[in-house]
Amino acid sequence: MNMPDSSSHRPDKPLQASDLEAVTAYLRAELPLSAAIGMSLTSWDGQTVSLSAPLGPNLNHADFAFGGSISSMAILATYSLLFLIFRERSISNRILIQESTTKFLRPIDTDIVATACCPAPVALDEFLQTLARKRKSRISLESSVYSGTTLAATHTGLFVAMLY
Amino acid sequence: MNMPDSSSHRPDKPLQASDLEAVTAYLRAELPLSAAIGMSLTSWDGQTVSLSAPLGPNLNHADFAFGGSISSMAILATYSLLFLIFRERSISNRILIQESTTKFLRPIDTDIVATACCPAPVALDEFLQTLARKRKSRISLESSVYSGTTLAATHTGLFVAMLY
Repeated sequence: MNMPDSSSHRPDKPLQASDLEAVTAYLRAELPLSAAIGMSLTSWDGQTVSLSAPLGPNLNHADFAFGGSISSMAILATYSLLFLIFRERSISNRILIQESTTKFLRPIDTDIVATACCPAPVALDEFLQTLARKRKSRISLESSVYSGTTLAATHTGLFVAMLY
Repeated sequence: MNMPDSSSHRPDKPLQASDLEAVTAYLRAELPLSAAIGMSLTSWDGQTVSLSAPLGPNLNHADFAFGGSISSMAILATYSLLFLIFRERSISNRILIQESTTKFLRPIDTDIVATACCPAPVALDEFLQTLARKRKSRISLESSVYSGTTLAATHTGLFVAMLY
């Protein structure tokens, strides 16, 4: 993964609008599906990343958000979280997903908002230390999908990261 | 769900190319994501439905298929299967997904092919009888995703159907 320059950003400082736009543009270029569904990164404070997408390109036959779009936004939230964690530490790696489970709780009838939070410091340290030692490390991460501000789906993803 | 006319098709007769195109066009119109990822129905013989999508719109950062696209194709295969089962029986209903689990086994570096098979006759009959009796019924369905002809992911989806 060749990441946009992160030299101007410290992990404890929220990303500014122009930097969010740059990361959004990078992800949209790397993952065409994220462009097709209109995904944008809306915030990252070093702990929680938020993404949003308009309902239009993600509608289903019942005029709610399509399950595939909801799962994709949940995966993108977690992928973005890992991307930002690695970017802030200038670690070049590859991230792959091994398992993805989405529970759909409520229909989504407005913008799709997805968030993912950093794991607990102990779990994150263990993940990064294993990656440094074995060049490969696995982590299970949660993300949540909202219809506006109402929780609409939960997602668990098992990811593997590999150093180049 | 207002379905395309099914009067010319018997359940035990494979869909012809023009009918596959009509169902593809209908699904693409109802589910814009399926159009964005280039999904097409390629066969339906009354038992197994097959879908395919080109790799291009579904690439990830590593030039394989993106996990969200793979999950979406797996969901679309199962949704298409239910759509065709109901269409052949002229049952108007709404289909929603409640849970989706994808296991990613191998990277996909060519067309994404997804298939879903009818459940065993006893399970299908029970599902349809419950739907007729209670106007609502749940079913768990499996689908498979291939990189060309190599199995690359498996999916389990829990669906609920509701009569209008």
